[in-house]
Amino acid sequence: MDLAELREQVCEANQELVRAGLVTLSFGNASGVDRDRGALVIKPSGVAYARLGPSDMVVVDLADGTVREGPYRPSSDTPTHLALYRRYPSIGGVVHTHSTFASSWAQAGRPIPCLGTTHADHFHGPVPVTRALSAEEIDGDYERETGNVIIETLAGLGLDPLEMPAVLVLSHGPFTWGAGSAEAVANAIALEAVAAMAHRTTTLEVAVEPIAALLLERHFGRKHGPAAYYGQPAERD
Amino acid sequence: MDLAELREQVCEANQELVRAGLVTLSFGNASGVDRDRGALVIKPSGVAYARLGPSDMVVVDLADGTVREGPYRPSSDTPTHLALYRRYPSIGGVVHTHSTFASSWAQAGRPIPCLGTTHADHFHGPVPVTRALSAEEIDGDYERETGNVIIETLAGLGLDPLEMPAVLVLSHGPFTWGAGSAEAVANAIALEAVAAMAHRTTTLEVAVEPIAALLLERHFGRKHGPAAYYGQPAERD
Amino acid sequence: MDLAELREQVCEANQELVRAGLVTLSFGNASGVDRDRGALVIKPSGVAYARLGPSDMVVVDLADGTVREGPYRPSSDTPTHLALYRRYPSIGGVVHTHSTFASSWAQAGRPIPCLGTTHADHFHGPVPVTRALSAEEIDGDYERETGNVIIETLAGLGLDPLEMPAVLVLSHGPFTWGAGSAEAVANAIALEAVAAMAHRTTTLEVAVEPIAALLLERHFGRKHGPAAYYGQPAERD
Amino acid sequence: MDLAELREQVCEANQELVRAGLVTLSFGNASGVDRDRGALVIKPSGVAYARLGPSDMVVVDLADGTVREGPYRPSSDTPTHLALYRRYPSIGGVVHTHSTFASSWAQAGRPIPCLGTTHADHFHGPVPVTRALSAEEIDGDYERETGNVIIETLAGLGLDPLEMPAVLVLSHGPFTWGAGSAEAVANAIALEAVAAMAHRTTTLEVAVEPIAALLLERHFGRKHGPAAYYGQPAERD
Repeated sequence: MDLAELREQVCEANQELVRAGLVTLSFGNASGVDRDRGALVIKPSGVAYARLGPSDMVVVDLADGTVREGPYRPSSDTPTHLALYRRYPSIGGVVHTHSTFASSWAQAGRPIPCLGTTHADHFHGPVPVTRALSAEEIDGDYERETGNVIIETLAGLGLDPLEMPAVLVLSHGPFTWGAGSAEAVANAIALEAVAAMAHRTTTLEVAVEPIAALLLERHFGRKHGPAAYYGQPAERD
Repeated sequence: MDLAELREQVCEANQELVRAGLVTLSFGNASGVDRDRGALVIKPSGVAYARLGPSDMVVVDLADGTVREGPYRPSSDTPTHLALYRRYPSIGGVVHTHSTFASSWAQAGRPIPCLGTTHADHFHGPVPVTRALSAEEIDGDYERETGNVIIETLAGLGLDPLEMPAVLVLSHGPFTWGAGSAEAVANAIALEAVAAMAHRTTTLEVAVEPIAALLLERHFGRKHGPAAYYGQPAERD
Repeated sequence: MDLAELREQVCEANQELVRAGLVTLSFGNASGVDRDRGALVIKPSGVAYARLGPSDMVVVDLADGTVREGPYRPSSDTPTHLALYRRYPSIGGVVHTHSTFASSWAQAGRPIPCLGTTHADHFHGPVPVTRALSAEEIDGDYERETGNVIIETLAGLGLDPLEMPAVLVLSHGPFTWGAGSAEAVANAIALEAVAAMAHRTTTLEVAVEPIAALLLERHFGRKHGPAAYYGQPAERD
Repeated sequence: MDLAELREQVCEANQELVRAGLVTLSFGNASGVDRDRGALVIKPSGVAYARLGPSDMVVVDLADGTVREGPYRPSSDTPTHLALYRRYPSIGGVVHTHSTFASSWAQAGRPIPCLGTTHADHFHGPVPVTRALSAEEIDGDYERETGNVIIETLAGLGLDPLEMPAVLVLSHGPFTWGAGSAEAVANAIALEAVAAMAHRTTTLEVAVEPIAALLLERHFGRKHGPAAYYGQPAERD
C-alpha cells in the first residue's frame, strides 16, 4: 500500500464517521499509519467534513511529528494519535469522536459496564475511563499527555489494545483503534451503540448485573482470536 | 414459490432491517423457510449490508443444517433459526437484531410490560425474557441452545409463537418471527417501537400500570384471529 | 374545493406524518372533511404508506358512516374521526398517531404539563388524558367510544377544540385536529416535540414548575385569536 | 459585502438549522447584521422553510426596527435580535431555536453545567438561564424585553457575549450568536449537542462534577483568543 491509498482509506474513514452520525460540526478525527514509511495520515484540523477529499489529508512523520505532506495543519489531536501508534505496534488506525452517548459516560467518569453480547462482541470487559489529567499535564503537552493517560489506563488494567480497542478520556470522550482505520471506525460505531444501550439499561434498572463472565468470553471469542467463527474466512478480524 | 423468490424476499427483509434503523454495523439477520424443499435461506455471516444481493443469501438444509447453496458461510446464529423452524411449524420467517431499546430490556433482564395498544396490537401480553444460559449451554452448542431457551421460555408461559412472536434473550437481544420473513421484520420493528415507548413510560412513571386486560384483548383481536377487522380483507395477518 | 382536491390534501397529510417521523409500520391516520358534501376522506386501513396515492383514499358518509367511494376499507379508527367531526363543527381535519413520546405520556396516564412556550404556542394549557374506557365501551362500539371519551374529556375541562387541539387517549396515544388536515398534522408534529421536551425536562428535574400563566397567554395569543401577530397576514392560523 | 450577499448568508443559515435537525415546523430563526448599512436581515415570520429563498429574507432597519425591504413581515422575534445587535457591537449573527434538549434545560430552569471538553470548546463556563420575565415585561414589549433579560443575564455574570455565545431564556429556549450568522448557527448546533450530553450525563450520574477549571481554560483557549491553535490559520474563529 502506498500513501495515496492510505489517504483514500483515511478520508473514507473520516466520512464514515459522519455517515454513522458520530460527528457534530467538525468534531472528531480518524487516522491510519504506514509503518514501512514511518508516517501517519490524519484529517486536517477544523476543516468541514463536506469539503474533505483524500488530497486534504495530512501526512505526519511518525518519529518526529512534523508535517511531511498536505496543504493543511493536521488535527490538533495528532500528538494523541502519535503516542498511541508509537506505543502499540499492533494498531494501524485511531479514531477520536465526541459521540454523545460515549461522551456522556466519559463526562460521568464511569466505565461502560459490559451488560450484554453487543458489548462482548467488541470489547473484552468494561470500557475503562482515564484518571483526571494533572495540572502539569494540562498545562504541558496536553494532547500527548492525553495519549499517555490512555496508555497508562490500559497498562494499569493489564489490557492489550486489540482486546480493549477503546478508552474514555475523563471529561472528554472516546478514543478507539484497530488493525486499520476502518476497524477503528467500526469500533467507534460499536462503542456508541454499546454506550447508548448501557445508558438505557441503567436508567431502566439501576442495579443491573453485568453479563456472565462465560458469556462474555464466548462472544468475544466468536469474533476474535484463533477460535473465531463469525464472518467469512477471508474477512475475519 | 421457488428458492430464487425466497432469496429475494430474505434479502429484502435484511435490507428493510437497515432502512428501519434496527442495524448497527453487520449486527442482525433475517431468514425465511421453504418447508416443501426442507431449506431455509439466511444472510451470510459478517458481510456488509450494503453489498448484499439475493445471490449472496445462503441456503441451509433444514434437517441437517449443512449449506446447500451460496458462496458464503451462513450467519453464526443459523442454529438458533433452525431450532425455531423445527419446533414451530407455523412460522416462516425469523429475525434477530441488537436494536437498542429492545436490547436494553434484554440487558436489564426485564420483560417488556404491555403498557398500551401499540404493544397489544402485536404482542399478546408482556414480551418475555429468557433465563440465563448455563455454563454447559454456553460452552456447548451455544447458538442452538439459544434457540432452545427461547422455546423453553414460550412453553413455560404456555404461549403460542404467533400470539407472542418475540422473545428477549437475556444479556443479548430480541428474536422475532412470523408467517414469513416480512412479518418477522414487521414484528422486529414493532418490538423496537414498543420497547422505546415502554422505556420512556417507565422513566416518566416508575409505578405505571399495565394496559387493562380487556383492552389488550380488543386490540390484539382487531388484528389477529377470526374476528380481526384491521387492514384489507386480502391482507389480514 | 371538490373531493378530488380533498383526497390530494388528505393523502399529503398522511405522507407528511411519515416524513415527520411520527409513523412506524402502518400505524396512524389522517382525515379531512367536506361539510358541504357531508363526507370525510380518510386513509385506508393497514395499507403501506409507500403505496398510498390520492385515489386510494376512502370517502365515508359523515351521517351514516358508510363508504361512498374508494377501493379499500377505511381506517379502523374511522368511527373515532366521525364522532369528532359530528361533535365539533369548527374542525376540518383529524389525525391519530402512535408517536413515541406522546404515546409514552398516554401510557403513563399523565397529562403533558405546559412547561414552556413551544407548548403554549400550540396548546392552551396541559394536554389532557382521557379516563379509562369501561368494559362496556371496550366490548361495544369501541372506536366510536374512543371518540366519545375524547369529547367527554374536553367537555369536562370546559375546553374548546381549537384551543386544545389534542387529547391523549389513555393506554393508547394522541388524537389531534385542526381547521383542516394540514393543521391537524402540524398539531401532531408540535405535540410530539412538546411531549419529548416535557419528558426530557421531567427526567432532569422532577419537581419542575409549569410555565407562568401570563406567559402561556402571551404565547398562545401571539399565534391564535384576534390579537395574533405571528406569521404572515394571509396565513395566520 | 452588500445586502444581496447577506440575504444569501442568512437564508443559508436558516436552512442549515433545518439540516442540523434543530427545527420543528417553522420554529426558530437566524439573522445577520450589516453595520455599515445599519440593517439586519432576518427570516420572515411563520413561512415554511422549504419555500424560503434569499429574496424572502426581510431587511430591517437597525435603528428604528422598520422593514426596509422584503415581501414579508419579519420574524416576530425581531425585537429580540435588534436588542442584542444594539447592545453587542462584536456580534454579526443571532439564532433562536426551540431545539429539544437545550429547551428542556430552559424549561427546567437550570443552567447547562460545563461537564466536558465539547462544552468547553464553545462556551466558557455553564450556559446561563435568565430570570422569569415580570408581568409588566410579558404584557409590554415582550420580544424586546426577552432581549433585555438576556443582556441582563450576561451582565450580571460579567460575561462577554463572544466567550458565552448562548443564553437559555427561562421556559422558552436558547438564543445563540457569533461573529456572523454561520457562527451563530454553529453555536446553536454545538449547544444542542452539549445539552444532550449534559442531559445523558445527569440522568446517569446525578452528582456529576463539572470539568476541572484548568481543562476548561485549555479547551476554550485551544479554539478562542490569541493562543488558539485549533483549525487552519486563515479560518480560526
